[in-house]
Amino acid sequence: METISENACFGGIQGVYSHRSASCDCDMTFGLFLPAEAQDGPVPVLWYLSGLTCTHENAMVKAAAQGWAAEQGIALIFPDTSPRGEAIADDEAYDLGKGAGFYVNATKAPWAPHFQMYDYITKDLTELVFEKFALDASRQAITGHSMGGHGALTIAMREAGRFSSVSAFSPICNPSGSDWGRKQFEAYLGSDESKWAGHDASLLMAEHGFDGPVLIDTGTKDQFLDLLKPEILAQAAAAKRQEMTFRMQPGYDHSYFFVSTFMEDHISFHAEALYA
Amino acid sequence: METISENACFGGIQGVYSHRSASCDCDMTFGLFLPAEAQDGPVPVLWYLSGLTCTHENAMVKAAAQGWAAEQGIALIFPDTSPRGEAIADDEAYDLGKGAGFYVNATKAPWAPHFQMYDYITKDLTELVFEKFALDASRQAITGHSMGGHGALTIAMREAGRFSSVSAFSPICNPSGSDWGRKQFEAYLGSDESKWAGHDASLLMAEHGFDGPVLIDTGTKDQFLDLLKPEILAQAAAAKRQEMTFRMQPGYDHSYFFVSTFMEDHISFHAEALYA
Repeated sequence: METISENACFGGIQGVYSHRSASCDCDMTFGLFLPAEAQDGPVPVLWYLSGLTCTHENAMVKAAAQGWAAEQGIALIFPDTSPRGEAIADDEAYDLGKGAGFYVNATKAPWAPHFQMYDYITKDLTELVFEKFALDASRQAITGHSMGGHGALTIAMREAGRFSSVSAFSPICNPSGSDWGRKQFEAYLGSDESKWAGHDASLLMAEHGFDGPVLIDTGTKDQFLDLLKPEILAQAAAAKRQEMTFRMQPGYDHSYFFVSTFMEDHISFHAEALYA
Repeated sequence: METISENACFGGIQGVYSHRSASCDCDMTFGLFLPAEAQDGPVPVLWYLSGLTCTHENAMVKAAAQGWAAEQGIALIFPDTSPRGEAIADDEAYDLGKGAGFYVNATKAPWAPHFQMYDYITKDLTELVFEKFALDASRQAITGHSMGGHGALTIAMREAGRFSSVSAFSPICNPSGSDWGRKQFEAYLGSDESKWAGHDASLLMAEHGFDGPVLIDTGTKDQFLDLLKPEILAQAAAAKRQEMTFRMQPGYDHSYFFVSTFMEDHISFHAEALYA
């Protein structure tokens, strides 16, 4: 692991690090905010998964999360959204290939050799951060924005027992029924839709639910509402009687101005579960 | 004036607008955060002047200021740092020309035709925003970062009576004694150093002081400390017995991670003066 930068931030450290990912077979970069409490021992962790076109950096500088995390003594991990490098397959579209890993393990060419983002997040990066930093693996929560909201919800439901709580900002809720999902799942996983179901938050919710609290915020003026399909997830969660707070926020769009507005709520929500 | 974008943000609106500046003789872009209270009538204003290489956008997305401004019912104005456009003079260096207006009115070629940033901020943009938005001209405060901290301090002291309070994050404190200042003042104002004194915060402090409270934060690990020279300003203010809180913050550098960390303090400081 290599340290790219470390900046003092709200009494803690906002770091950026790179490391070799075995799953993605390339170097990966991530951001990590460590609150002051980490100097005295392991602290709880909130994973933040980012959306299409983002790197590790967007949320780290735009989401206004560190102040609230510092107040709660919680670390924040900001992973990248895809493998990176000149040798890595890509597509001209912004929503496929680099910056658009969709948090799945690709099985199809040309993506399979490097696009293993599910394993990257849940295995490679997980092992690294708990080995290298003062983080408490028994207290983890997860959130994300847009494609990263999809990642947070699906990973939380698949990795049963690992996360105390899950939240999302304007998540892609039903990718197997959306143009933000069908194209990518076909490219990464092939045309057999039975392989997609395990990465669709609404289908996972209907099948399994989540053993803990869920918080979802989406703006009523989100320009991508028809692609996000929050109503499909809300219906599945209601049918399951899932413990959940589902909010449509009046006037808000898909931007980080929306994310930063509700970041305090999300971090408070996770803190309550992490310290329960 | 043209609306570039408006996003819901902390119950208010984060807008970006462009307009023709008579002083700079070009189109200029600025950001404006209006809290919810502006729907009911004019609200106090905090000007935020940005540093070298920045546009209107940097602080708008990285300073985490809107949440605290919303809590206090205060508007934020984020001006650009120089004239813009293909026809505008520039220099290869990052610290001269575009992105480096230094908040002065240039008198020398090739800068004089457009680099009139002092008048742009204090006249053109001032007239525009108080005409177009629900802002209370009798309640103004000013802050800034680095070159923008220099701008905030010098404008506040020159425009006596206009601002209730002034603060700065890692300001350039003594430009006429620094490589962040001497080159630019010579280029914009000529080699007669008597013309520089009116734009040097430390010299203005020694001569006039500021009729109100002053707050200055600088990191002890700021990589540009030798260029910023906070000690010169501190000495001038001490000699003047200026009402001031001057803080060297342990471990912090020059980045927006530093600015965002202390933004709550600065906005609370200005709110106290604005609502006094």
